[in-house]
Amino acid sequence: MNAEIIAVGSELLTPQRLDTNSLYLTERLNALGVEVVAKAVIGDDRARLRDAVRAALARSEIVILTGGLGPTEDDVTREAVAEALGRPLVWRQELADAIEARFRRMGRKMAEINKRQAYLIEGAEALSNDQGTAPGQWIEAGPGHYLMLLPGPPVELKSVFERECLARLERVVPPLAIRTRVFRVAGMPESDLDQLISPVYKRYKNPATTILAAPGDIQIHLRARAETAEQAEALLAELAPQIEALLGDNIYSRNGEPLEGAVGALLVARGATLAVAESCTGGMLAERITSVAGSSRYFVGGLLVYNDEMKEKLLGISAELLAGHTAVSQPVAEAMAARVRQRTGATFGLSVTGYAGPEGGDAEHPVGTVYIGLAAPEGTSARPFRFLGDRERVRRLATQSALDLLRRHLAR
Amino acid sequence: MNAEIIAVGSELLTPQRLDTNSLYLTERLNALGVEVVAKAVIGDDRARLRDAVRAALARSEIVILTGGLGPTEDDVTREAVAEALGRPLVWRQELADAIEARFRRMGRKMAEINKRQAYLIEGAEALSNDQGTAPGQWIEAGPGHYLMLLPGPPVELKSVFERECLARLERVVPPLAIRTRVFRVAGMPESDLDQLISPVYKRYKNPATTILAAPGDIQIHLRARAETAEQAEALLAELAPQIEALLGDNIYSRNGEPLEGAVGALLVARGATLAVAESCTGGMLAERITSVAGSSRYFVGGLLVYNDEMKEKLLGISAELLAGHTAVSQPVAEAMAARVRQRTGATFGLSVTGYAGPEGGDAEHPVGTVYIGLAAPEGTSARPFRFLGDRERVRRLATQSALDLLRRHLAR
Repeated sequence: MNAEIIAVGSELLTPQRLDTNSLYLTERLNALGVEVVAKAVIGDDRARLRDAVRAALARSEIVILTGGLGPTEDDVTREAVAEALGRPLVWRQELADAIEARFRRMGRKMAEINKRQAYLIEGAEALSNDQGTAPGQWIEAGPGHYLMLLPGPPVELKSVFERECLARLERVVPPLAIRTRVFRVAGMPESDLDQLISPVYKRYKNPATTILAAPGDIQIHLRARAETAEQAEALLAELAPQIEALLGDNIYSRNGEPLEGAVGALLVARGATLAVAESCTGGMLAERITSVAGSSRYFVGGLLVYNDEMKEKLLGISAELLAGHTAVSQPVAEAMAARVRQRTGATFGLSVTGYAGPEGGDAEHPVGTVYIGLAAPEGTSARPFRFLGDRERVRRLATQSALDLLRRHLAR
Repeated sequence: MNAEIIAVGSELLTPQRLDTNSLYLTERLNALGVEVVAKAVIGDDRARLRDAVRAALARSEIVILTGGLGPTEDDVTREAVAEALGRPLVWRQELADAIEARFRRMGRKMAEINKRQAYLIEGAEALSNDQGTAPGQWIEAGPGHYLMLLPGPPVELKSVFERECLARLERVVPPLAIRTRVFRVAGMPESDLDQLISPVYKRYKNPATTILAAPGDIQIHLRARAETAEQAEALLAELAPQIEALLGDNIYSRNGEPLEGAVGALLVARGATLAVAESCTGGMLAERITSVAGSSRYFVGGLLVYNDEMKEKLLGISAELLAGHTAVSQPVAEAMAARVRQRTGATFGLSVTGYAGPEGGDAEHPVGTVYIGLAAPEGTSARPFRFLGDRERVRRLATQSALDLLRRHLAR
């Protein structure tokens, strides 16, 4: 079955806003075996919306509208859909009572304007909204064609969809089992990865393979569809091991977990602790590590040494070493890692020093040059990297490489 | 004039991807006085795309398609638009030569398949692409109706649009001057802000006011449209000062700059330096400060003290103080700020200690309790905060409040 999603709201046509509800809905629909074949954003314009609904219903079995169910004149979804279907709006006293009761619970009086939300399209079932005043609507638009009107605020949309729409959809959508596998990969350029695995995954239409690349971080999504869960698992079991074998230890996660989470799990498994010394990344490495709930089990802290004076003062790195090699050098990266490990008593010390740009660097060490140091019980070492891109990207790639260096050490 | 944007590509219909090109295009079109009245995403489906193009051209004067201009069978934009217009595709030898030359420069041979990119729709002008192989196309679809085919990768799209489309659009779009003003506000809940300023801005349709709220950070966009720049400025000059008067020093930026940039500018103006001591934010505060290019002029570094032991070891906070008050307390926040200022010799020391969750805290100090300390030449103080939300949100709000505390101190 095919679905289309129409997001309603002039604010979604500004340069600042995107319709993100459709991502959530797409995920849910896909999991039911429904393909999303088109998405649209329409402003608060009744005629335009009416035409869009008519066109979508003519093409697809399922049409979901989000937003435009509020109480104001700008909220045109109810009227536009009624027009598209050629059906009247019907007053429903029990909906008005429920809205009024909701206001009363909040100690407020319902405004007259909210009565607009008590109208249903003829033949519609009301979808209760426990997070807001606007009820959703489920409409059988014709044989095998279904229309859903859902509120726009994400928390309301998700609640209405999960409590009211999922079960109704399951009754009308032919059963289909979908199983997914996600691999996350660090330390490989996307083009190298694709060259390596595309000859394998391109042989399969099912599972379908999607590759999502962020700087230094690639996700490979495999999605198998079949009549039963066992058949879908069997399809995955054929393709997934081939990809795993090709990528080996470049795969850091098999459950979607980000790199900082994978490193955390390895540290916990080893009963080890970690401290960081950061220069150009200025706290980004520690911020990523501590974004993981429970990271206090293995992360103890760190030193941010953003200039040479701090490298001396806080880390005790000698002025001679800094003068002899400059702060962006292998010996200084090693000293930073070793000293933070020593100062904190952590099992591992991880350090980053480099030129994030836009200023800094020289001909030999241009912007993007970064040294990453690792001090471990087994000894201390540092590696040079050269990243391309702007300041944000260089810093992001530096933290990614630092985490990956530690991961590979821990996984050995 | 009205515009519609159609993004082409099945990958944009997955739960992982959004069409972000439309935001850039909307900003550019709005600046020319063109309204975007609808956006759509269509998969790699020729018939569906043909119908979408026809419908959009019937409604709007400008239609921009992004993506689907690559060399493979999946790239259906050229064929779909040709069908929609009822025009043939025409082979253009000079385009084939240019594509071949591009491959040669990269030391590669053009694949046979790339020849698909040398076809133009009859009557189209080729739009040169200096960032990729796919040329764009500019088509006068009928009197006063214009169609643009642009490549999907953002870097290619922007280059083609700016070098090739802007000047052509300026020739066909009636001149309209647009001036904008942006205020950024910290330290106020969105509902309070809206209650305060909506009676004022709701009186004006032009400038149009848009409010964008992120946790602890609100942007107010005013956009005036007029025949001349002077008239647009005059419209802004009527509304903007009223909003400024109501918001006072809650406004931290008048040029769109983020809070960390505004604080940096104040530090530079004062010739002052800053160091941080972070517990629950684990580096996020320093990361934000150092995300600003040139922050090494005022940021010296900091100490990440993620547990009590580190607060003792790295900052010299006494075990008695920690035992007597716990790490999440006003005295410890003050001590952290004072000690990091002393250790580093910075003009200001800023500290954060709290319970970011999901674990930690107690009945009196639940998750979301955060103390922020500021050590200045004039003395040291700390303030309690209580934030609602998940770990990421609490950490974000804590850094925002810390930066805002320093900003208000510096602006005094």
